[in-house]
Amino acid sequence: MEDTLQGLFFPESIALYGIPRGLKPGKVFLLGLLDQGFGGPIHLIHPTAREIDGYRTYAGLDQVPGPVDLVIIMSPRDTVFEALEECARKRVKAVILYTSGFSELGGEAGREAESCMRRIARDGGFRILGPNCMGVLSPGSRIAPFPGLPKTPGPLGFISQSGSLLNLFVNLCTRKGLAFSHAVSSGNGADIDMADLLAWMGRDAGTRTICSYCEGTRDGARLVRALRETTAHKPVIMWKVGLTAAGSRAAASHTGALTGQAELWGSLFRQFHVLDVYDVEEMCDLALAFCHLGPGGSGRVVIVSGPGGPAVSAADAVERNGLAMAVPGEESIRRLRELLPPTGTSPANPVDVGLGASFDIGLYQGALEIILDDPGVDAVVMLGGGASTEMSADFVQGIIKAKAGTDKHVIAIAYPGFVQIDQEELLRPLYEHGIPVYPTPERALRAYARMLGYYRYRAAAG
Amino acid sequence: MEDTLQGLFFPESIALYGIPRGLKPGKVFLLGLLDQGFGGPIHLIHPTAREIDGYRTYAGLDQVPGPVDLVIIMSPRDTVFEALEECARKRVKAVILYTSGFSELGGEAGREAESCMRRIARDGGFRILGPNCMGVLSPGSRIAPFPGLPKTPGPLGFISQSGSLLNLFVNLCTRKGLAFSHAVSSGNGADIDMADLLAWMGRDAGTRTICSYCEGTRDGARLVRALRETTAHKPVIMWKVGLTAAGSRAAASHTGALTGQAELWGSLFRQFHVLDVYDVEEMCDLALAFCHLGPGGSGRVVIVSGPGGPAVSAADAVERNGLAMAVPGEESIRRLRELLPPTGTSPANPVDVGLGASFDIGLYQGALEIILDDPGVDAVVMLGGGASTEMSADFVQGIIKAKAGTDKHVIAIAYPGFVQIDQEELLRPLYEHGIPVYPTPERALRAYARMLGYYRYRAAAG
Repeated sequence: MEDTLQGLFFPESIALYGIPRGLKPGKVFLLGLLDQGFGGPIHLIHPTAREIDGYRTYAGLDQVPGPVDLVIIMSPRDTVFEALEECARKRVKAVILYTSGFSELGGEAGREAESCMRRIARDGGFRILGPNCMGVLSPGSRIAPFPGLPKTPGPLGFISQSGSLLNLFVNLCTRKGLAFSHAVSSGNGADIDMADLLAWMGRDAGTRTICSYCEGTRDGARLVRALRETTAHKPVIMWKVGLTAAGSRAAASHTGALTGQAELWGSLFRQFHVLDVYDVEEMCDLALAFCHLGPGGSGRVVIVSGPGGPAVSAADAVERNGLAMAVPGEESIRRLRELLPPTGTSPANPVDVGLGASFDIGLYQGALEIILDDPGVDAVVMLGGGASTEMSADFVQGIIKAKAGTDKHVIAIAYPGFVQIDQEELLRPLYEHGIPVYPTPERALRAYARMLGYYRYRAAAG
Repeated sequence: MEDTLQGLFFPESIALYGIPRGLKPGKVFLLGLLDQGFGGPIHLIHPTAREIDGYRTYAGLDQVPGPVDLVIIMSPRDTVFEALEECARKRVKAVILYTSGFSELGGEAGREAESCMRRIARDGGFRILGPNCMGVLSPGSRIAPFPGLPKTPGPLGFISQSGSLLNLFVNLCTRKGLAFSHAVSSGNGADIDMADLLAWMGRDAGTRTICSYCEGTRDGARLVRALRETTAHKPVIMWKVGLTAAGSRAAASHTGALTGQAELWGSLFRQFHVLDVYDVEEMCDLALAFCHLGPGGSGRVVIVSGPGGPAVSAADAVERNGLAMAVPGEESIRRLRELLPPTGTSPANPVDVGLGASFDIGLYQGALEIILDDPGVDAVVMLGGGASTEMSADFVQGIIKAKAGTDKHVIAIAYPGFVQIDQEELLRPLYEHGIPVYPTPERALRAYARMLGYYRYRAAAG
């Protein structure tokens, strides 16, 4: 079944059904395709207009010359079934149904209408995403649901029942150097649902890590099957909402989802090592670890820090998250003693390079190089920065240089309020070199430990 | 005993003992006092120089004319005892001992030296902060340990065993509109320790909420007494580190602290409703709630949101944190229906103002005003923003205007990646009007619920 999703993610021709004349919400679909530079034909369907924004329009799909792979329907609710019948006649492969006003309204009529949509699609041999959804971002196919989204593909997949979360999670991750294979907003999931998308992304070669925002599913058994298949070879990070009564009611009026019971979801997550997260920050924290670090090592961590206080709490976080404080070898200790000033520093782990390192920024790079040379170390958490923006840029370059010679994990901390380090522009080179940056060592080490836990699960399972 | 700390926080004259000639670390103390515009005399003590940076210097404290309340000692380790003897002869009130190299080195000699310091101070009738500490920021007294710190006093007190955390926590909070009565770095705590500082801030009229970064204490019984007295009338937020074996070892080499057992600290926190936190972000989250919101209401929350997904997870967070989703009255629902577009919105709780509100920014203010009018509502979480920076500025002003007429709690969310909202400069007016801003509703609601929990404890206890 899910192979039929090729038409959704890799269309060669697209029709926009019900494109508005003016600058109304539906117009963003056209702007999105133009922004990405979609290479195939884009056909506009409008009941009365002859042209919109200088493009020729057609009164119906039947009049479009040549095949159409994907139809994005944004016409009013009462025209949706006519549009779907036209899609069936045109033998399209997939439909993105943006129009809302179905099961999310809570009545019986909405559910019946969605069941009818499924029948039309099955009979017509095509699949429907939505209704009440924003659709698909696939930079590799040059398709996007609105302009301003990233144009470079990457290894992260995202499945979201919420359209607004598609937008904001993509924005948030893009800032942190993460790029997407496909990001999809599935809305009410009348036909294509969470399980279809998960299974498809599990098999998609361009997707290495899958994040998802999940309100609920109609078909638990298929979701279980999709999770079992997928987590055996790709990490699945899931933000499951609607686990409380209040959240469940909110989800019902948002996408009409049946959210289900917390206990069932909890046991599902444990069984297949789904990485469940609490909020959007934690989802991004985990995506950063998986995309920038990957498997390797057994979690022996060294903290290298300028400020002393955060290093103590970082050591706590190492142990709390089931990681080990590495014990640097004698040779490392000797070299660190040689490098570091005699007072206000410590060559043990945490390696305290002293607050003076903010002014003598080479100490950070030197200490990192010594620690990365140590065979007893798997990962280094770097906590520091320079006394000026220029020195913080040197701090960043020092980490990149030291990391260049090794596959070991290096994680940088841009502590909020510490010197001049937590500026997005300054940190970009770290992300570009595959070095994740977190605001606190606590968040970094939690994400890192969960990533290692997933790879242990997979090694044991496989 | 703690009344003797007046000389530390409200000195009328200061001597800098061992001020360096060049731009060495100790120089920051002079720069800090000049930056704050300290009003009393500042005397410089140097063994050989006649003047430094154009200021006259004295060879010893004995030669300084007139009384000296506070001496900041930054001279080398082997001159510290001579300096302390001079302080005793001069009858000073307090000493900040910046010099390090004592118990944090781990040997017996360091502990003995600190015990000797205590004796000299007791005999001389003065108190010592440190050694191995950065000292005190008290904007009301115009004293600071280095330049660039805020000059406006406020209701937040901070006690930190780490000097670097004093700096970064003050920076972090200042960005979020919080201001400090006193922030103090206590270092090894040879004489003045956590318990003294807590008890003193508990009685200080200018301090309304106390945050602390605690590695450990020498005298558990006094800390228990100080906590019991203080939490009965002021919230104490404590970031206790060194609770794991790894963290405990790190703390020992940082400030020589005895960190003690996790269970003991845990039961202490529960008994006196100390608000323990996990990292610097959570400490700041709680400080924001206490300083900007304060007691009132019984936790009946309404979520007002543009994006739908985050509103669902916000509803989850309301329930998870033991708060209640308020049920807006019929009149509110009627007015919301009148205000909001008929599709893509919902007048229930969460109040979904629709994604179109990013372009029609008055919908946010209108919905907030209706909800704040509702007698069944205690608090509103506002999740939104505008499609442009200008519209996000209107969003911010709309919240401020709606909040002006009421004492109810209003919390704003600047969701990372959502439209143009999460820009520090844009959010500043919210902080200035006592409206806290959090990145996610999950963090906001956790902090809010813990704040209400503290006030319930205090009402029950008092």
